[in-house]
Amino acid sequence: MLMRNNIIKELKSALTPQNVLTEIEERYAYAQDALNLPEIKKLPDVVVFVENIEQVQAVVRLANKYKIPIICRGAGTNVVGACTVEHGGIILNFSKMNKILEISSENMTAKVQPGVVVGELQRQVEALGLYYPPDPSNLAVSTIGGSIAQSSGGARTFKYGSTKDYVIDLLVVTASGELLRTGSSTIKNATGYNLNTLFVGSEGTLGIVVEATLKLIPKPQLARVIMAYFDTVKASVDAVNAVIEQQIFPVTIDFMDKNAIQTVERFYPTGLLCDKESALIIEVDGFESAVEFQQKTIVSILETCGASSIQYSKTEDDYHRIWQARRSSMGACAKLRPNVTTDDVIVPRKNLEKLVMGIRAICKKYRLEVCMVGHVGDGSVHPQIPINYNDKDEYRRYKLAKNEIYELTARLDGILSGEHGIGAAKREYISKVVNSQALDYMRMIKKVFDPNNILNPYKIF
Amino acid sequence: MLMRNNIIKELKSALTPQNVLTEIEERYAYAQDALNLPEIKKLPDVVVFVENIEQVQAVVRLANKYKIPIICRGAGTNVVGACTVEHGGIILNFSKMNKILEISSENMTAKVQPGVVVGELQRQVEALGLYYPPDPSNLAVSTIGGSIAQSSGGARTFKYGSTKDYVIDLLVVTASGELLRTGSSTIKNATGYNLNTLFVGSEGTLGIVVEATLKLIPKPQLARVIMAYFDTVKASVDAVNAVIEQQIFPVTIDFMDKNAIQTVERFYPTGLLCDKESALIIEVDGFESAVEFQQKTIVSILETCGASSIQYSKTEDDYHRIWQARRSSMGACAKLRPNVTTDDVIVPRKNLEKLVMGIRAICKKYRLEVCMVGHVGDGSVHPQIPINYNDKDEYRRYKLAKNEIYELTARLDGILSGEHGIGAAKREYISKVVNSQALDYMRMIKKVFDPNNILNPYKIF
Repeated sequence: MLMRNNIIKELKSALTPQNVLTEIEERYAYAQDALNLPEIKKLPDVVVFVENIEQVQAVVRLANKYKIPIICRGAGTNVVGACTVEHGGIILNFSKMNKILEISSENMTAKVQPGVVVGELQRQVEALGLYYPPDPSNLAVSTIGGSIAQSSGGARTFKYGSTKDYVIDLLVVTASGELLRTGSSTIKNATGYNLNTLFVGSEGTLGIVVEATLKLIPKPQLARVIMAYFDTVKASVDAVNAVIEQQIFPVTIDFMDKNAIQTVERFYPTGLLCDKESALIIEVDGFESAVEFQQKTIVSILETCGASSIQYSKTEDDYHRIWQARRSSMGACAKLRPNVTTDDVIVPRKNLEKLVMGIRAICKKYRLEVCMVGHVGDGSVHPQIPINYNDKDEYRRYKLAKNEIYELTARLDGILSGEHGIGAAKREYISKVVNSQALDYMRMIKKVFDPNNILNPYKIF
Repeated sequence: MLMRNNIIKELKSALTPQNVLTEIEERYAYAQDALNLPEIKKLPDVVVFVENIEQVQAVVRLANKYKIPIICRGAGTNVVGACTVEHGGIILNFSKMNKILEISSENMTAKVQPGVVVGELQRQVEALGLYYPPDPSNLAVSTIGGSIAQSSGGARTFKYGSTKDYVIDLLVVTASGELLRTGSSTIKNATGYNLNTLFVGSEGTLGIVVEATLKLIPKPQLARVIMAYFDTVKASVDAVNAVIEQQIFPVTIDFMDKNAIQTVERFYPTGLLCDKESALIIEVDGFESAVEFQQKTIVSILETCGASSIQYSKTEDDYHRIWQARRSSMGACAKLRPNVTTDDVIVPRKNLEKLVMGIRAICKKYRLEVCMVGHVGDGSVHPQIPINYNDKDEYRRYKLAKNEIYELTARLDGILSGEHGIGAAKREYISKVVNSQALDYMRMIKKVFDPNNILNPYKIF
C-alpha cells in the first residue's frame, strides 16, 4: 500500500492531479466494459487521463519500473473484456487524446489520436468527399484506438475490408516507454516487416498506440439498402451465392434470423415480417446508374431464389429505417432479460447455414434464447443470448452452450472472432482454433515487445 | 567440401536425385534474379526442386542441422536481389509446387501452392466470375510465393490493395521444419496476432510459405482505360487530385514521363505523343453504365485540367494497346544500354511532383538517363535507369544517384519500397526511412522465427 501511494504520487506529478483518479467510486466505473461478465469485474488501482504522447511515455515508464499492468481504454465498448483489469493496475484513459490531427485530401489519409470517435472521423472525412469504411455498429461512441486494438470490422467489411486494411502508420509507445513508428506516410509499403498489422488486433498487449495514420478512399456517391425475407436460412445463404455469381459486389450482406426479427419487432416495431425464418439486408453503393443496376439485378435474383416481401430504400429515411431495425437487435435482446451477451464466430460461408442451425440447436439444448444477426457475406454470426447473470444455473448453462458453440465453429473450419477480438472472454478457448505453433510464436512475439508483461497482461492467451 | 558432399547425399535421399542440381552450369542459372547487379551474383551450393510440403520440411531440417542458408525461389523475377544467395546455401525451387488446390466460389477463396503463376490464377478465377486483383507487371511469369514474399502490388493497388490485403491463411514451414498455420479459412479474423501479414513482405526471412489461401472478390463486369497527356508533371498530378475530388475511385492512376514516352515510342511505336511532359493512364471498372459515367466525368475533368489528346479504349484491342505501351517501358529502356535498373520509391501523393523532378535532376547531375513510370495514385515511382554495368565509372555514378534518390525520398516523407521489397539491393539504405526502434524490433522478430539465421539470411537488414 505504501508502494501504491508512492506510485500514485509519481503519477500525479507526471500528469496533473485531476487526471489521476483514485477514489473507489471513480475506479468502479472502469471495472467493466460492455462485456460485463460477472467473473471479470475487477477494480483498477488507478485511472489516469493522458493528454499527450509524453504523458503516455511517463506513465508507461512508471508502470515498467514498478511492473504494474497498464490497460488502455477508449469508450469501453469492447465486448470481450479486453479493456478490463484482472490483477489491478493502471487504466490509461484516452478520452482526452481525441483530436483529428490532419485530413489530407491530396494523400487521402487522416492522422488521428486514439481517442477519436469512429463516427466523428467518418463525418469529417465524408464532408470532404472522402470515406473511412470500417463501421463497427457502436461507431457513434467507439474510438479508433479501440478499433485498432480489436481489429474492428462492421457491415461494410464484405466490400471494403476491416481496420487492418486502413492503418498505414502508427506511433506506438513501447513497454519501455520508447516511441516506435510502425509504418510510413505512404499508401503502400514493402519496406521491412509489416509492423502495422501486427499491432492491429493485438489488443494493447504489444504497445500503446498514441497516433494513427489511416488510409481513406473516395466516398461513394450513393448507397441503397435492400431487405428480403426467406422461409429457410439455407434459402437466404443460397441467395447470397446467387448474387455473387452475377458479379455483383455489395457493400454489405447482413442477415437476421427469426428470433432477431421477432424480438426487434416486439420492442422497436417497424413492420418486420415475424413469420419468416430469416431476412437478408443487402447494401449496394456507387454512382446512381450503378446503384440502380445493382438493385434491379439483386431484386430479380432474390425473387428467383424464393425471397418474399422485397423492399428497398427509396429515400434516406427508408435507408435508416431498415438499418435501424438490423442494428436494434442487441438493444431489443437486452430487454428480454437483465443481461445480454453477444459473440462473434465466423466460418467459411459455405458452412454458415450449419453454424446458424447448430447454434440454434445448442441454445435449445441449454434452454437459452438466442437472436442471431450477422454479416452473412463474410460468414460471420453474432449470436445474442439474453440472460440473467444472477441466475447461477442459467449462467452455467450459458457457459456450456458457449463452449459447444466454439467447438461447432472449430469443426466448421471457423474461428472464434472475426471482428471483436479475444480479450479475457475467449482466451481459454483460443487453442480450439489456433494451433499450438502459432500460439507459441504469438507468445514469443509478446515477449519481444513486452518482456515484463505489463501491457494488458493475461489477454488473448 | 566433405560436409557439402555429405549434405548433398542427404538431400538426394530426402528428395529424388534428379531434383538436386549440383553442376556448376546448373547452379549458375540461379546466381542472379532480375536485379542482376554485378556485386550480388554468387553461386548457390545446390539447387533443389521440392514437390510437396514434407520435402520442404526435410530440406529445412537438413539446413537447420548444418546451419546452411536456404533461399526460396519462384520465377526469379525479383528486382531487389531477394532470392539470390550471398554466402552459399541451398536454393529451394518451388516451380514444381505450382498447383491451384481449390477455388471456392461459395467462400470466394483460392488455395494455392507457392509456385502458382499469378496470371494463371487470375485466368482461372476470372473464368468463374471471380477476381484476384494484385497485378504485378510481371504476372505472366511471377509466382504467388514471390508475391507474398515481396508484398507485391501492381497498377490496381490504388483501388484494390496489394497482396497483403488478400492473404487470409498461410501454411509455413518454420526454421526448425515444423508446420505453422498463420490464419484461418475465414475472410475476417480477429483471433490473436495477425501472423498472415507479418509473413507477407518478409522476403522468406521468417519461414517458408508452402500453401496460401487467398481472398477473392467478384470480377468487375467491364474495365476501360483513358490516356491523357500533360505539358507539366505538376499538371498531371493536379488532375489526379481533381478526379478524386469528384468522388471517382479509379482502379489505376498510372503515369509515364517524357523519357518513358519517347523511349517506348522509339522501340515499340504505337503513336504516343513524344513532345508531352507526362501522360496519365487511368483505368475505371464496374458495370457498363458506371464505366460510361466515370469515363465521361474523368475526360471532362482532364480537359479542365489542361490535358490534351485524351483517348479512351473503345475495344479490348484499344485497352491492351494502351496498357502495352505503359508496360513496355522497362523493355524499351533495356534496349538503350546493356543493362537496366528499376526502383520503387514512394511518397505521399502531395510530394510526387517533387520526387519526379528531383529524380530527374539527380540523374542529370550524374549523367544518367532515366525513364519514369509509376502508380501516381499511390505516390509510387519506378525510375528505370539504363546502364552498362561493365562501365565502372557509370556504375559508380549510378550508385551515387541511387543514394541521393533515397535521401530525397526520405526528405519527402517517403519510403524505399512500395511493392518490390528491400532484399539485398536496398538493405544498406533502409535506416534512412525506418527508425532504429522499428529495425530493432524487426531483428528481434527475425530471431524469434529464425534463431540460427538460415532463412534467406542477410536480406532486408
